[in-house]
Amino acid sequence: MNRAVIARVVGLILCIEAACMLPSLAIALVVRGTDVNAFLLSIALCGGTGLLLTRIKAKSKRFQTRDGFVAVALCWIMLGLSGALPYTFCGFSYVDSVFETVSGFTTTGATIVAMPSALPRGLQFWRALTQWMGGMGVLVMVLALLPSLGEGSVNLMKAESPGPISSKLRPKTSETARSLYIIYIALTLAETALLCAAEMPVFDALTTAFTTISTGGFSVRDASIAYYGSEVINWIIVVFMFVSAVNFGALFQMQRGQWKDAFRSEELLSYTGITFGAVALITVDLVRTVGKGVYESFSQSFFQVVTLMTTTGYATADFDLWPFFSKSVLLLVMFVGGCAGSTAGGVKVSRIVILFKGLKRELRRILHTREVRPLTLEGARVEEGTVSSVSVFFFAYIVIMMLCAVIVSLDGVDLTTSLSASLTTISNVGPGFALIGPTCNFAFLSGLSKVVLTLNMLLGRLEIMPLLVLLFPSVWKK
Amino acid sequence: MNRAVIARVVGLILCIEAACMLPSLAIALVVRGTDVNAFLLSIALCGGTGLLLTRIKAKSKRFQTRDGFVAVALCWIMLGLSGALPYTFCGFSYVDSVFETVSGFTTTGATIVAMPSALPRGLQFWRALTQWMGGMGVLVMVLALLPSLGEGSVNLMKAESPGPISSKLRPKTSETARSLYIIYIALTLAETALLCAAEMPVFDALTTAFTTISTGGFSVRDASIAYYGSEVINWIIVVFMFVSAVNFGALFQMQRGQWKDAFRSEELLSYTGITFGAVALITVDLVRTVGKGVYESFSQSFFQVVTLMTTTGYATADFDLWPFFSKSVLLLVMFVGGCAGSTAGGVKVSRIVILFKGLKRELRRILHTREVRPLTLEGARVEEGTVSSVSVFFFAYIVIMMLCAVIVSLDGVDLTTSLSASLTTISNVGPGFALIGPTCNFAFLSGLSKVVLTLNMLLGRLEIMPLLVLLFPSVWKK
Repeated sequence: MNRAVIARVVGLILCIEAACMLPSLAIALVVRGTDVNAFLLSIALCGGTGLLLTRIKAKSKRFQTRDGFVAVALCWIMLGLSGALPYTFCGFSYVDSVFETVSGFTTTGATIVAMPSALPRGLQFWRALTQWMGGMGVLVMVLALLPSLGEGSVNLMKAESPGPISSKLRPKTSETARSLYIIYIALTLAETALLCAAEMPVFDALTTAFTTISTGGFSVRDASIAYYGSEVINWIIVVFMFVSAVNFGALFQMQRGQWKDAFRSEELLSYTGITFGAVALITVDLVRTVGKGVYESFSQSFFQVVTLMTTTGYATADFDLWPFFSKSVLLLVMFVGGCAGSTAGGVKVSRIVILFKGLKRELRRILHTREVRPLTLEGARVEEGTVSSVSVFFFAYIVIMMLCAVIVSLDGVDLTTSLSASLTTISNVGPGFALIGPTCNFAFLSGLSKVVLTLNMLLGRLEIMPLLVLLFPSVWKK
Repeated sequence: MNRAVIARVVGLILCIEAACMLPSLAIALVVRGTDVNAFLLSIALCGGTGLLLTRIKAKSKRFQTRDGFVAVALCWIMLGLSGALPYTFCGFSYVDSVFETVSGFTTTGATIVAMPSALPRGLQFWRALTQWMGGMGVLVMVLALLPSLGEGSVNLMKAESPGPISSKLRPKTSETARSLYIIYIALTLAETALLCAAEMPVFDALTTAFTTISTGGFSVRDASIAYYGSEVINWIIVVFMFVSAVNFGALFQMQRGQWKDAFRSEELLSYTGITFGAVALITVDLVRTVGKGVYESFSQSFFQVVTLMTTTGYATADFDLWPFFSKSVLLLVMFVGGCAGSTAGGVKVSRIVILFKGLKRELRRILHTREVRPLTLEGARVEEGTVSSVSVFFFAYIVIMMLCAVIVSLDGVDLTTSLSASLTTISNVGPGFALIGPTCNFAFLSGLSKVVLTLNMLLGRLEIMPLLVLLFPSVWKK
C-alpha cells in the first residue's frame, strides 16, 4: 500500500473542494447572505487540511489497483465529511449535513431539506455544485487538471468510473479525463443556455443544469421542476437527463462524427428500449386506470421514467399516487439505472445485458453440453473475470439493499418506505415511495437510518468494492 | 433429444400419479364422500393416458443432460395439469385447481381454499399427498422404484434435485434415490407417531407429517397449526420442519453414524446460524416493540422463522401484524430458504455461501492482483462452472421475482402484496404479507396473476433452468 501517495491525493481533493466553495462564498458576499462565515470557515478548514496533506512526500508515485480503490474510497468519505461543514455552520445537525452532502456528491438527490428555496443562496449553489462535481467524478477532475499525478493513475479512474468495463477514449489517462470533462462542460453550458431561453431565471438555469447533467436531481425549488409549470422546460430537461445517462464513450464517438459506431452500441439500444418500453406500459396504465388524456399520460410518464431510470430524481408529478402497476415499473427502472460510463447510478444497463447473456449461455450449455462460447459485448469479447465481477457485484448490490432496508425498518416505517429508501439511495436516484415519495423528504428518519442510507449512497456511487476493500484488515497493516 | 424416452417417463409419472390417487379414492369410499366420482374419473384419465404413453418404444434409453431437464419440466407441468382434475371435478375452476395442485407438488402451500376443513376427506388427503410426493421429487421416486429406467438417468435426478451441487450418496443413482426415500419415509412415520402421541387425530397427524417433512405447509385446518393450540405439537412440528430443510446428504451421514462429518458441514452451520440469528432479532423486537413476554416472543418467533425459512408456511401467529423490522427479517429468511438437497425451497443456503465466498474472492483479487484461489465448499473445490451457474441462477431468480411482482400488481394490489406474493411462490413458502398474509388466501387474485404465480412456483421448485430450456426453439425441432 502506497500510503504517502494516497494521503497526497486526499489532500489534493480537499484543496479542490475548498476551491469549489469559492463561488458560493462570492455569491454569499454579493447577496449579503447569512452563509458568508459558514463558507469562510469551511474553506479555511478544508483548504488548510488539504495543503498540509499535500506536503507529505511520497518515495514512489506508483499506484496499484488496490491503491486506486483505497484512495477513491477515502477521498469520497473525506469529501462527504468535509463538504458537510457549510451546512453544519448554517445550523443543520452534522448527520443531516453529511447525508445532504453525500447525497450531493453521489448525485443521489435524496434530501433532508424540506424547503430548499429557503436556504441561503450560497448554500443553494454549493448543494447543486456538489452534484456536478460528483457526477463525472472528483478524481477524474483531478486527473484532468494534474496529468502527472502518478504512474498507474488509471487505477484511480477505474475505481471511480461506474460500469463493468472502463473505456479508454484516448491513449493517456489524463487525456481521457479531459475529453470526458469537455463533453460534460459542453452539455452543462448548452442546457443552461436553453433553459435561460425558456425563461428560467439564470441562477435556476445554472443550478438545474448542474443537477441534470450529473443526474443528481437537487432543485432550488420546493416543488422541484413542477414549480416552473412549463412543458418546454420539462422537455429540455428530459432530453438532457436522457443524454447524460448515455455512456460518455458513445457521446465521445458522436462528437467525433462516428455516429454509426455510437448507435450500434448494444448498451445504448437496450437503454433506449427499456426507457420507451417503460413509458409505453405506464402511459397505457395511466390512461386505462386513472383516465388521464393520452398526451398528458405520455408526457408525465416520459418525464418520470427518464428521471428515475437516469437516477436523477426530479419530479413533475406525484408518482406515489399512481396505480401500483406503474409504480412497480418505476421501481424496476430505478433498479436498472443508466448506462455504464455515464453520470447515472443503478446496476447499469451493460451489467444487466451481460447478466442476461450469461443466463442465455448457461441455458445453451445445458442444451449442448460441449459448446462453451465466450460472451461478447459491443462486438468485443468480455473476459471471464469481468463476467464473474459483474455477477458478484449484482449479488452484493441485492444483499446490501436488503440489509439496509431491514435496518431502516427499525424506524417503524412500512416495507414500501424502507425498501424504496434503500433502493433509491444505492441506485443514487433520490425520491422513493410512501413516506419518502417525491413530495416528502428524509428528515424524519432516525440518525441510524440516515447514517446507513448515507453509506448506501456511497456504496452505490463507488460501486461497492472500494468501500468493502476498506474492511479488510490487511489494508490497514503496515 | 430422445423424445421417445421422455414420453415414456411422462407416462410413468402419470401412472404413478393415478396410483397415488387410490388412497384418496379409498378414503372417499369409506367415508362416503362427495368426491368418489371425482377420483374415479381422475384415476381413469391419468392412468389411461399414462399407460398409452408408456407403450411408446424407445430405440435408445440414453439420457443426456438436456433430456433430463426437458423430461423433468414436462413431467412437472403434466403433474400439475392432471393432478388438478380431482379439484375440478369437485367444483373448483380449472385455473384454481391447477394453482392448488402446483402449490402442492412444489410444496409451496399457497392456497385458494378459504376453508380446507370443508373439503371432502379424500380431497384433503390428496392435497396433503401432493406435497409429500413433490417434496423429495416425483422422478426421484420413479428412480427409486424402477432402477433400470435408462442410461444417464442421473441427469433426471440432477434436474429435479434442488441445489447447486447434486450429492451422490451411493454409487448407483437408484440406490441414492432409495436411500433418500428411506430417510424421507422414516421421518414422516416418526412425526406421525409423535403427533398422535400428542393427541392429534390420526388423519390430521398423517397429513400434517406429509406437509411438514416436504416443507409444504398445507393444513386440513382453517387456522393452520394454530388450531390445535398445543405448545407440544408446535415444538414437534418445529423440529421436523428444521430437520427436513437440512441437506439429506447430511442426514444420510448422521444415519450412518458419521456425526462429525455431518456437523462439520458449512451449509448446516450457516443454516443453523441464520435461523437462530433471525429468531434472536425477532424475539428482541417483539419484546421491545409489542411488549410480549420473553418466552412467548421466543416460541412464536422460533416457529415463524423456521416455518418461513424452511419454506413450509404453517402459521401459529399472524406475523403480518408484527412490527416492520420483524417482517423484514422474515422476508429475508424466506428469500434464503433451506439447505440444498433438502425438501425446502428458496435460493438455498449453500448458494448464498458460495456467493459470499465469491464476493470475498473478488475483494481479495483487488487487494492482491495476482492471487486467484479456487472456491471451496465442505472442504471440496467448487468448479468455476458451478460458481458461474450459481451466479446466473441468482440473477434469474431476482429478475423472475421482480417481473412476476409487476404482473401481479396489475390486479391493483399494493407493493407489499405483489412483492411478497412473488417471493413466497418462487421460494415455495406459501403465505406472504398484507392481502396474502397468513390469515388470507390467494383466491381473490385474477386468473392472470394465478397463472403467473403458478409458473413462479414451478420455476422455484425446479430451480428455473428446466423450464427456461423449454423456451429454446431447438428443443422442439426434430
